[in-house]
Amino acid sequence: MTTISIGFIQFAPKLNNLASTIQTLEQLFQDYVDPTIDLLVLPELGNSGYNFPSPEVAWVSSETVTKSLFIDYLVGQAEKYNLHIVSGFNERSGDKLYNSAVLVGPTGYIGRYRKLHLFLNEKDFFEPGNLGLPIFDIGQAQIGMLVCFDWVFPEAWRVLALKGVDIICHPSNLVLPGLCQSTVPSHALMNHVYVITANRIGTEENLTFTGLSTIAGPTGQVLYQATQTNVEVGLVDVDLSEARDKAITARNDLFADRRVDVYGDLVS
Amino acid sequence: MTTISIGFIQFAPKLNNLASTIQTLEQLFQDYVDPTIDLLVLPELGNSGYNFPSPEVAWVSSETVTKSLFIDYLVGQAEKYNLHIVSGFNERSGDKLYNSAVLVGPTGYIGRYRKLHLFLNEKDFFEPGNLGLPIFDIGQAQIGMLVCFDWVFPEAWRVLALKGVDIICHPSNLVLPGLCQSTVPSHALMNHVYVITANRIGTEENLTFTGLSTIAGPTGQVLYQATQTNVEVGLVDVDLSEARDKAITARNDLFADRRVDVYGDLVS
Repeated sequence: MTTISIGFIQFAPKLNNLASTIQTLEQLFQDYVDPTIDLLVLPELGNSGYNFPSPEVAWVSSETVTKSLFIDYLVGQAEKYNLHIVSGFNERSGDKLYNSAVLVGPTGYIGRYRKLHLFLNEKDFFEPGNLGLPIFDIGQAQIGMLVCFDWVFPEAWRVLALKGVDIICHPSNLVLPGLCQSTVPSHALMNHVYVITANRIGTEENLTFTGLSTIAGPTGQVLYQATQTNVEVGLVDVDLSEARDKAITARNDLFADRRVDVYGDLVS
Repeated sequence: MTTISIGFIQFAPKLNNLASTIQTLEQLFQDYVDPTIDLLVLPELGNSGYNFPSPEVAWVSSETVTKSLFIDYLVGQAEKYNLHIVSGFNERSGDKLYNSAVLVGPTGYIGRYRKLHLFLNEKDFFEPGNLGLPIFDIGQAQIGMLVCFDWVFPEAWRVLALKGVDIICHPSNLVLPGLCQSTVPSHALMNHVYVITANRIGTEENLTFTGLSTIAGPTGQVLYQATQTNVEVGLVDVDLSEARDKAITARNDLFADRRVDVYGDLVS
């Protein structure tokens, strides 16, 4: 058994108001977070909010990973509570923006993933991800990141699983009612990994976000599901050895049984 | 709109007793089937039953596709009711057995699929499938076939969808409680296809089959789900144009949005 404590913070980042978002998070960390927790996932675009009225608002609410009040704040919390944090991040790089997820730990910023599959009007603001599907070692676990609409592409989950992740962290700003949340346990099951889908709540203009942040386990079990509308910190203890063993019967292994001779290997 | 009527027959094939199985089917066809139906799916290993006590029993209950009382019977029904039928089939070929699915229509036997991913003790009786993932034109629709445990490999569903199927026919003898049945709507959703999972009921020695045969649609909706234990014929009218349109928003197409530059194309 390799047990670690994983979870999410379901809340509403404030559109183009990082100071307000950090104030909200500060209260949540004080109230709910302690050093027994190992990994926390926050929603998509945590530093900026989601529903930009214009490219200008998307731009002014973006940050670079090397100069970011939001990352500095998260690193401070990661250090204080000795944990790792994944959060969605409106990332500026040169004159481009990416809908990214960042990973920070007690010693600072570690790495990022840039959303591969952009949803609807995101295409007006962001470049498609260009860093592939990286995985990261956080000491106790190997993790990967996906962002929101990536959920509908089974290839993305599979590639991360085949690369050896124990946990897929999935910052989201889901607006379709429960579709992703009902599918996440299937992704966890078919890849025998843990999944943390951290969705947001609240409304930005015409978009209402659907909460129901979900932690699912390798046998397809829903380990925790938040409400649709409340601020909520969801935490569960998980045994990583369950994600590392891909045997699902005495004679079936989810990965060894794959027919790569028929459909290729996905990971090159 | 291209509306067709699709469904399944959930019943219990009789182990190594084809005459009894055909008698059961004969009554079900008389009671429930009529010429308004276009496509029916029967469970896995419909001609033989599932839980063979020995390789000998698997062998004696097998048939070749060219000389099969079971296929002859199904072709007769397909002709009588002017429909297509997919059924699981214990297929003998030379000195080998395959856990196959066969497709028949009003004019006779059309084709087969051989199960790619064998479950548990099936490995004692059957060879792994060696015909890839073929698709078939039944006039109104393009269909593909998967068999039971194939469900846990998202690659198989994706390849069939990318090849252009409207409907995936999925004869099954599921024993795990509801896992597949809860995942089928996700496969339908992520590939925007219809899925007919025709499971069996009943018990063979230590195995109890879990029914809950399911028809799911392109938006992840469960269109019909049978009971866990009853003989049942499930029928729904479906609009094939829904499966042919892979757009899920005005700016998102499930196939065009795939990042084949990152994870390859699956279909070579």
